[in-house]
Amino acid sequence: MHVDLLNPAQSARTAHLLHQHAPLVHCMTNDVVQTFTANVLLALGASPAMVIDAGEAAQFSAIASAVLINVGTLTQPRAQAMRAAVESANAAKTPWTLDPVAVGALTLRSEFCRGLLQLQPAAIRGNASEILALAGESHGGRGVDTTDTAATALPAAQKLARESGAIVAVTGEVDYITDGQQTLAVQGGDPLMTRVVGTGCALSAVVAASCALPGSRLENVAGACALMKFAGQQAAGGRGPGSFMPAFLDALYAMNAEVAA
Amino acid sequence: MHVDLLNPAQSARTAHLLHQHAPLVHCMTNDVVQTFTANVLLALGASPAMVIDAGEAAQFSAIASAVLINVGTLTQPRAQAMRAAVESANAAKTPWTLDPVAVGALTLRSEFCRGLLQLQPAAIRGNASEILALAGESHGGRGVDTTDTAATALPAAQKLARESGAIVAVTGEVDYITDGQQTLAVQGGDPLMTRVVGTGCALSAVVAASCALPGSRLENVAGACALMKFAGQQAAGGRGPGSFMPAFLDALYAMNAEVAA
Amino acid sequence: MHVDLLNPAQSARTAHLLHQHAPLVHCMTNDVVQTFTANVLLALGASPAMVIDAGEAAQFSAIASAVLINVGTLTQPRAQAMRAAVESANAAKTPWTLDPVAVGALTLRSEFCRGLLQLQPAAIRGNASEILALAGESHGGRGVDTTDTAATALPAAQKLARESGAIVAVTGEVDYITDGQQTLAVQGGDPLMTRVVGTGCALSAVVAASCALPGSRLENVAGACALMKFAGQQAAGGRGPGSFMPAFLDALYAMNAEVAA
Repeated sequence: MHVDLLNPAQSARTAHLLHQHAPLVHCMTNDVVQTFTANVLLALGASPAMVIDAGEAAQFSAIASAVLINVGTLTQPRAQAMRAAVESANAAKTPWTLDPVAVGALTLRSEFCRGLLQLQPAAIRGNASEILALAGESHGGRGVDTTDTAATALPAAQKLARESGAIVAVTGEVDYITDGQQTLAVQGGDPLMTRVVGTGCALSAVVAASCALPGSRLENVAGACALMKFAGQQAAGGRGPGSFMPAFLDALYAMNAEVAA
Repeated sequence: MHVDLLNPAQSARTAHLLHQHAPLVHCMTNDVVQTFTANVLLALGASPAMVIDAGEAAQFSAIASAVLINVGTLTQPRAQAMRAAVESANAAKTPWTLDPVAVGALTLRSEFCRGLLQLQPAAIRGNASEILALAGESHGGRGVDTTDTAATALPAAQKLARESGAIVAVTGEVDYITDGQQTLAVQGGDPLMTRVVGTGCALSAVVAASCALPGSRLENVAGACALMKFAGQQAAGGRGPGSFMPAFLDALYAMNAEVAA
Repeated sequence: MHVDLLNPAQSARTAHLLHQHAPLVHCMTNDVVQTFTANVLLALGASPAMVIDAGEAAQFSAIASAVLINVGTLTQPRAQAMRAAVESANAAKTPWTLDPVAVGALTLRSEFCRGLLQLQPAAIRGNASEILALAGESHGGRGVDTTDTAATALPAAQKLARESGAIVAVTGEVDYITDGQQTLAVQGGDPLMTRVVGTGCALSAVVAASCALPGSRLENVAGACALMKFAGQQAAGGRGPGSFMPAFLDALYAMNAEVAA
């Protein structure tokens, strides 16, 4: 199982492309992380929008540059709206990304996510437990937490990538990004990122945005992972998770401003 | 098309009235901006409340000082609840304000907002694309972003004000507030306000609150626009959008504290 | 009516237990406070999760360490999901906590909360108006605000505790925590806590978490109240509610870090 370290220049390159192309990201995400997700995309120069009625979501998928499907607070009506958005995205060739939050132990989301795998996701981003469960290798972790390291789930991620055609990012202390053949590893980040809600979900939104960029999708998705880890490192060193959050958004914005300069 | 610059003293006057009257603002707003909207109102000394069941929303409109209807994440059940709230508000003579987020390209919200125009809104606050679309002059912008300047939409805003009876605020780098006859312009603000989600939506909540105040509604709505721009200027100069947000709330609170002193 | 002041060491003891046991708290809470609630629990070392589909919520209640039911933005579908979660929690002996936001004047939540009282809540946390209304002693306050002091509602809280079997915390400038026989008082806090949305709702989540801890539930719930007031005091002294929020989370995290050291 060969793994390459991502070229350290890729995170600035992805930040530059995000700033330059300002993708409009249609985020169908969970209730808990909507504000933070929007602010992360805005700090990077991308443009978030949340539309959740089934009819409107389908209309919007055709306008948007990218779609994010995050099942953290899934309900039956939202599942229908998400499915409509994905089908419309596919018809419009808009790339869509899946964040299978807490898939495994909970029935509605597990069946829904497995069904979505047939609909050609551009990317999938999850923690080890989620990727293992989505690949059918386990029954998932303790809610949103993972009880496995990302490396443990790498074979499942590679299998999932080959079967679904998606770039799969399994993230943790080290992130692994794979298309099923080639695998890139991304180091960095800070433990405080796990004490702030939504860093993983917001990463999935940046992954979704990166799928709208030109160039290698594998490298752009890995670049999305890398720039979030870089901002996490920049923001650490404060007094705790409260001061971490503004510092994290400022660090993302600084990457955006640097590449703009 | 004559436009007057708002008297610079109006923003402190509106802040004073908000602090003094502490209006209870029933916010039926989108999922992304609820926390920020509540915190903006609290910083100014107003009192936010979010109630979304149709029956409860109708009950609450009769108790509240003002109602905000923001269609950013509209669904069919929420549209029904909002309509019930508006009808109850009208019966109780509670002023209600419309924020027609991303109206135009998306069907559900466009039809819903056009229907609401018949129900005597006290105020309407939107960006240029939204006001143009609501007035029937265009099909709306790229999602929540505007592709027009506020000045472009001023004739549409004036027409909309005359037809609906509402004070219409079309906001952007310069804000224009009109009753269809008289028009006030408000300058200020900072570009960072567009890199933080919810500044426009929170402004609509402050506009809603200002409609519960005594005195000229045109001047109070313009004062609401002005105090948000003033706080935006106070909060700029930091390291990015992350540090901007706390500084913005602190600046609103300082206006509140100054007038209280 | 005898009241004891809580032992000042209890707040550090509860913080220590939260850090040590890291309870998984299933939060079915309102739309406005979800992010802040999650961040408060994470700062303390607990693990939040929000699951809202009725079927999934029932599955998750059996996995979680504790459940929070907050009716701030109740709808009919959510009421059904919450009821399913509570019944599953009871079957699995998972303690569940009720936050009866704005109960009294609004029909759906009032009937729903009164029905829940039959289902053995472990704890109830509300302001004076909410506790008075839930105990059937009044018709509730002006929305989410309270117009009574906590002391006024203490007899109602004690009656409610005896009738429901729950620990009842009625909170305000002074918090009172009672099992119907013994009553503890907690002082501290800062007025800025009322200018930030969600401090009360997040406290209810910490109360829910504290019900999963070993030892005296009365003391653990009082400890939850005390550690939030302590963090509020630590965070005050800044420039306003904007800078208060990060400082508040940092203060909670510091309690966590201190006990971990």
